[in-house]
Amino acid sequence: MLSKERILSLLKSQNYDQLIYEFDEYNTFTIVEEISDLEIDDLIKILVVTPKIISADVFANFDFEVKQEIFESIKKADIEKIFEHLFTDDIVEVLLELSPNRIRFLLDHIDKDTRLAFEELLTYPIDSAGALMTTDYIRLHEDDTFSEALDKVKRQGRIAEIVTDCYVINDQEQLVGTIKLKDLLFGDATDMLIDSMEGSIVSVHVEQDQSDALELMQKYDLLVLPVVNEDEKIIGIITIDDIIDVLEQEVTHDVHSMAGITKVEGSYIDMGILEMAKARIPWLLIIMVTAFFTELVLDHFSMELAVVPVLAAFIPMTMGTSGNAANQATVMVVRSIAVDNLSMKDTAKIFLKETQVSLYLMVIMGIATFIRLLVFPPMIMLDVILSITLSIVISLYIGNVIGGLLPIVALRLKQDPAAMAAPLVTNIMDISSLLVYFICAKLLLGI
Amino acid sequence: MLSKERILSLLKSQNYDQLIYEFDEYNTFTIVEEISDLEIDDLIKILVVTPKIISADVFANFDFEVKQEIFESIKKADIEKIFEHLFTDDIVEVLLELSPNRIRFLLDHIDKDTRLAFEELLTYPIDSAGALMTTDYIRLHEDDTFSEALDKVKRQGRIAEIVTDCYVINDQEQLVGTIKLKDLLFGDATDMLIDSMEGSIVSVHVEQDQSDALELMQKYDLLVLPVVNEDEKIIGIITIDDIIDVLEQEVTHDVHSMAGITKVEGSYIDMGILEMAKARIPWLLIIMVTAFFTELVLDHFSMELAVVPVLAAFIPMTMGTSGNAANQATVMVVRSIAVDNLSMKDTAKIFLKETQVSLYLMVIMGIATFIRLLVFPPMIMLDVILSITLSIVISLYIGNVIGGLLPIVALRLKQDPAAMAAPLVTNIMDISSLLVYFICAKLLLGI
Repeated sequence: MLSKERILSLLKSQNYDQLIYEFDEYNTFTIVEEISDLEIDDLIKILVVTPKIISADVFANFDFEVKQEIFESIKKADIEKIFEHLFTDDIVEVLLELSPNRIRFLLDHIDKDTRLAFEELLTYPIDSAGALMTTDYIRLHEDDTFSEALDKVKRQGRIAEIVTDCYVINDQEQLVGTIKLKDLLFGDATDMLIDSMEGSIVSVHVEQDQSDALELMQKYDLLVLPVVNEDEKIIGIITIDDIIDVLEQEVTHDVHSMAGITKVEGSYIDMGILEMAKARIPWLLIIMVTAFFTELVLDHFSMELAVVPVLAAFIPMTMGTSGNAANQATVMVVRSIAVDNLSMKDTAKIFLKETQVSLYLMVIMGIATFIRLLVFPPMIMLDVILSITLSIVISLYIGNVIGGLLPIVALRLKQDPAAMAAPLVTNIMDISSLLVYFICAKLLLGI
Repeated sequence: MLSKERILSLLKSQNYDQLIYEFDEYNTFTIVEEISDLEIDDLIKILVVTPKIISADVFANFDFEVKQEIFESIKKADIEKIFEHLFTDDIVEVLLELSPNRIRFLLDHIDKDTRLAFEELLTYPIDSAGALMTTDYIRLHEDDTFSEALDKVKRQGRIAEIVTDCYVINDQEQLVGTIKLKDLLFGDATDMLIDSMEGSIVSVHVEQDQSDALELMQKYDLLVLPVVNEDEKIIGIITIDDIIDVLEQEVTHDVHSMAGITKVEGSYIDMGILEMAKARIPWLLIIMVTAFFTELVLDHFSMELAVVPVLAAFIPMTMGTSGNAANQATVMVVRSIAVDNLSMKDTAKIFLKETQVSLYLMVIMGIATFIRLLVFPPMIMLDVILSITLSIVISLYIGNVIGGLLPIVALRLKQDPAAMAAPLVTNIMDISSLLVYFICAKLLLGI
């Protein structure tokens, strides 16, 4: 049984072969669980003495703070080994969070080619495909035969992050095709790659956004996406496990946007207090300022409130109901834009659908409002009941249509529908439902 | 160049070898794009005449409506071939939406073993691992040598959905290990599987929830997850592309829940009007009913409103600001529960964090409110300004703490935090901010 004590004793007695042998018996996750509370120096030792096939996966599964601490603590002598033993994308991810001095120190102690490669990787914008890619992939040449190719796979494959797909380049190192490992394996040894490879390749440019890479991988159902530079040379691959993280970040960003929170990085617990306050204050201020218009409406109708004071008591119910209905419509459409690629051409469909759904909501909520006002205190006159019920029904319809169409308006203005539509809809509905409320009161009650 | 016309002419002249040859040159997506507006009968023809290695992927990439139409239209003679040529999970997905009569008709025209297998697959609950799995995977025996295993891979592998991992069974067909294709490939032909396989296996039970499968695959970073029955026999695998769909569904459900929408299936455009209304009405009714308490508070303080009528004008601003702040806190914590596994043990941390963030929000929003009331109409007395500012500052703090902790309360009550916390928080804040508002007014204005 693999245990923390066993691992420590093997490390102490420098019985690394036995350690590697025992690690081989367990999956990465079990190993990570056992070693996760070892001292950082022991973790570094393990990464240095185990072959890349173990160390790279183990490191990839550490918590980010552990990864960071490891890179803060590596001694000169171990730097080269560590850089060899990990996947490049995992290293870059950590380097991006270190101080410039520490990065310099680390890069100064690896061989020149590797250093130049990492220096280039570190120049890509933080949200670009380049910052997400790994350079551990299998490269074959178009003039290789299957048997030559399999030899290359054998040499590169053990350490590559994913070996389902191999990438085929020409003399200019341009990506000209892909071939699946299983096709290489089951083909004829004398076949030529150039005749058998898949020639139509989906790839992403190194400086393109990570969300573009995500979209391509979802559209084409890819486990791996090659990354190319402006000369069409392949310089890395993006793997599906990394893109799932991008998906989760995008979703978090969308969900936060819909609640009026600007973009934040990192988990709730680790996030800085000031950073969190900054992300939340802008929208609170906007709400406060736009509430000014709500006050103007209330002020304008103060005479009506003075004549029928009970009207004031039902303002929150009217505003709350129509605001929430509008928010429901907005959230459904925003999510559908993200998942089903709902677009501007669907404007008419959305209008029709919200109108139809509104009919149900208006009937049910109208009846419920009427009964509620009739039965529960404060007791009010029938004409006031009718006026309030009518205004709820009308503002429900306005809310559904505005809520459903606002995300499409955001698309047309080339804005993020989640960031623009969801927070805005409450304000628009506050004002419009108040207007409807008082106009109904004026017309039906003759005030 | 692959074109719709070329494909149609090859189909008409029954030149299937040439068709397969040309399909081989292009990726699945290009093929699907070209053929997607062919007649259903032509699509069925293509699926029947191309080998599984092409047809299975092509079918998997059709829109769901096309898949459904294909299964509605297959003629007797083609049924057997279609069932052979597609991945089982894709077939099951469609069968689940067909009429019982049509399912019966289809299953009656395939061989007995396949029929029994599908009948079993169709019995799994719609959200279970069993309903998501495919039975196209590679099975090896623990007593196989590497060379025997590679022969089996060769036979099964061409048609398996994913061949990175092979599953090793014992005489009782129980799952006893896994081995990576690359290890088989690079190992010694005389090695025994039983010595080289990975013995510690992560698997999911066939009747477990799909969300459990999702969790396991995220936790262990798996591309494939084996599915076992109560006898520990392997009966299928779940692949990462299918689990990404589950992830998106779960996120959609969470996002909808936070906006007070109950669980709905399918895309916005396809969803039934009645279904959508049913998903939205419950929460609108709850809001209407709880607004009753808001009215009670307003009614209770009607005397104060009569003395200082201008107080009424700023109720929406106070309720809006604190409600939105609370909602921001709730959404951040709910999302963090989903992504970072924030749990009950973090209650104190959340309380502390929200308190600290509140300090910033209270200072900034307090100053902003004060200036706004001092400068913009309607002009009000300084003591009223102070009273309103104080109540905004206090209810901001209450909102942040309640908003942050409510999702944790939901966890403790074993409720879905997204469904319980987010819609509830607005109501709680409406009432508590109103109370704060009037208590401040009573104390500071002496009314």
